[in-house]
Amino acid sequence: MPESIQPTVEADFTFAHTEPFALERGGQLQPVTLRYAIYGDLDRCRDRVVLVCHALSGSARVADWWPELFGAGLPFDIEKFAILGINLLGSCYGSTGPPSPNPVTGRKFGPEFPVVTIGDNVRAQAALLDHLGIAKLHATVGASIGGMQVLEWALRFPQRVSKAVAIGASPLNAVGLGLNHLQRRAIWNDPMWKGGWYDEQPAKGLAAARALAMITYKSPELFTERYSRKPNRNGEDPFSTVDGRFDVAGYLDYQGKIFVNRFDANSYIAISKLMDTWDVPAEGDPKYRAVAKSGVQVELIGISSDQLFPAAEVEALSQRFIRGGIGSRYSELKSDHGHDGFLAESGRLAEFLNSVLADASVNKASVAHSGVAAD
Amino acid sequence: MPESIQPTVEADFTFAHTEPFALERGGQLQPVTLRYAIYGDLDRCRDRVVLVCHALSGSARVADWWPELFGAGLPFDIEKFAILGINLLGSCYGSTGPPSPNPVTGRKFGPEFPVVTIGDNVRAQAALLDHLGIAKLHATVGASIGGMQVLEWALRFPQRVSKAVAIGASPLNAVGLGLNHLQRRAIWNDPMWKGGWYDEQPAKGLAAARALAMITYKSPELFTERYSRKPNRNGEDPFSTVDGRFDVAGYLDYQGKIFVNRFDANSYIAISKLMDTWDVPAEGDPKYRAVAKSGVQVELIGISSDQLFPAAEVEALSQRFIRGGIGSRYSELKSDHGHDGFLAESGRLAEFLNSVLADASVNKASVAHSGVAAD
Repeated sequence: MPESIQPTVEADFTFAHTEPFALERGGQLQPVTLRYAIYGDLDRCRDRVVLVCHALSGSARVADWWPELFGAGLPFDIEKFAILGINLLGSCYGSTGPPSPNPVTGRKFGPEFPVVTIGDNVRAQAALLDHLGIAKLHATVGASIGGMQVLEWALRFPQRVSKAVAIGASPLNAVGLGLNHLQRRAIWNDPMWKGGWYDEQPAKGLAAARALAMITYKSPELFTERYSRKPNRNGEDPFSTVDGRFDVAGYLDYQGKIFVNRFDANSYIAISKLMDTWDVPAEGDPKYRAVAKSGVQVELIGISSDQLFPAAEVEALSQRFIRGGIGSRYSELKSDHGHDGFLAESGRLAEFLNSVLADASVNKASVAHSGVAAD
Repeated sequence: MPESIQPTVEADFTFAHTEPFALERGGQLQPVTLRYAIYGDLDRCRDRVVLVCHALSGSARVADWWPELFGAGLPFDIEKFAILGINLLGSCYGSTGPPSPNPVTGRKFGPEFPVVTIGDNVRAQAALLDHLGIAKLHATVGASIGGMQVLEWALRFPQRVSKAVAIGASPLNAVGLGLNHLQRRAIWNDPMWKGGWYDEQPAKGLAAARALAMITYKSPELFTERYSRKPNRNGEDPFSTVDGRFDVAGYLDYQGKIFVNRFDANSYIAISKLMDTWDVPAEGDPKYRAVAKSGVQVELIGISSDQLFPAAEVEALSQRFIRGGIGSRYSELKSDHGHDGFLAESGRLAEFLNSVLADASVNKASVAHSGVAAD
């Protein structure tokens, strides 16, 4: 574990005090708080901000979950860039979400938290950028749900982003939608769920949801390499007893158990829904023209063994962007780590990100456009 | 749906009255009942019996779940063969299993049903063959857990089988073991489970287990083709409401729900365990020599899109058999239907099975050896 890297700034930005923030799918939030973290010197790097968007269970503290990319000579070099992380709406790590107090009822939102979307998040993030005086991002970078935000940034505010780097992200396919549903169902099935008004977490259901997710995050090859058909390392006998576990089962149970201590069940549901609902405009949608015109550089990276966002689907998305006139490029990260490849293959990812982020020509364009107003 | 095909004989065979049937993993059963079904005329076809082994939720009534293979010109032609189906020990369709009365306690076995294996099943099936006067099977055919029984027959009683046709079967890999564990965990998490002593089924847990299994039985391509990102056909709105479902989620819930009406939760656990524990002898095990000497013809069929038993693993198993000297052949069934390909691709499977079952040279050998005593 590398030494913990602390943000220069960690703060809450609260807006929509007078006018409610209208949500795309109906309903509203008022006010809205975004927890954000900045690594580096924003004043010095206001035209060289890299927004790093987090995945399902991440937080604004980018260096907590992607530490391997921070440092001199690495993509998140705070001498060159200011790195900005923003916690998702719906999460339980500081931004407005189900655990937040609902000003209307006086109690927490809980299951009454409205459906928020990736689009809602990106619109709220744009308000934070205004507040911070960031006219245009040098880059947005993210994987999984983070990649969805990255692409939403490019599609919605193309003039505010120079480079958009999305890893292992495409609209969720039917199997992914089914798996997310089964995860939510596991939480709903837990009697401790109590319609979302639990005092104590629905621990079994949330653990089951996390365990199911974990089995989709790695490739079958990696699971075989790590666990094969070995009995659980604690000495249980999976062959002779009904409840004796194999090693892989012990791993999944453990991952489920520790997750309950750090994540809220209502937030899990809100964010898995966020993932489900995200999609991109249909082929031929006129929106693509505005994006194409902006010159935003879109980098899509598929992970060869990704079970959740198959590389072929990421590549197809890149093709769709190209047909829409967007400067999109597809690259493949060869990895046995499945969807988790974005965390596990940080060395090769760092190399790729270094080349993209350092591209001076686009960087200059970014500076030149930095006065462009928000969409 | 083809017209229902009725077995000529459907009966229970009960043995181990005086001596208990010792189980491989410890414990015993006394007595043991096997529910079996025969299609065709056993007296006329005693040397042309095809044993068809069922998968997780199947039964002895082969024509109920594989009707497309029955008929003139089809593999299960009762003019040519007697088709024998035997319900698995541990099941809830007639053979001894958790719902059966435990003679020791006077109540049902329930969660006290011992761990039974594929090997236990095949040994019990051999006792039924003795009872029926079947010295040697013309063929064993099965898919999934059915394929495991087929291969266990070839490995354990090679002189009693001429042709062994196993479809979509290999020792379960780490992901498969993990998925089975999560399914059992879903049942155990249901408060209606009551340690296995339920009066009413743990319906939510069993439905969740079945739904999770169903998502592994088809290929992602097929799910995309069938459901894509469409809202549930009943009109729910998955985009604006937290509990609104996509079509794929409605399908999975429905599959889970109807399963609860036809399958017992303790049996589900027993049979998923049966699947977990099955393996083949290690490379170089001397057992392979006896199998090789018997001349049994092993046909392994991988399904190209199988998520649970990847075609590459089925092929690797065939290679292992070949290195052990066994006459094994690997074929691949190209299908988008995933593991369910053995049911969905009955037309092409019928063609393949016809050629294997009709092979006269091996058929003759079978007849010639039909006096060979049981192992």
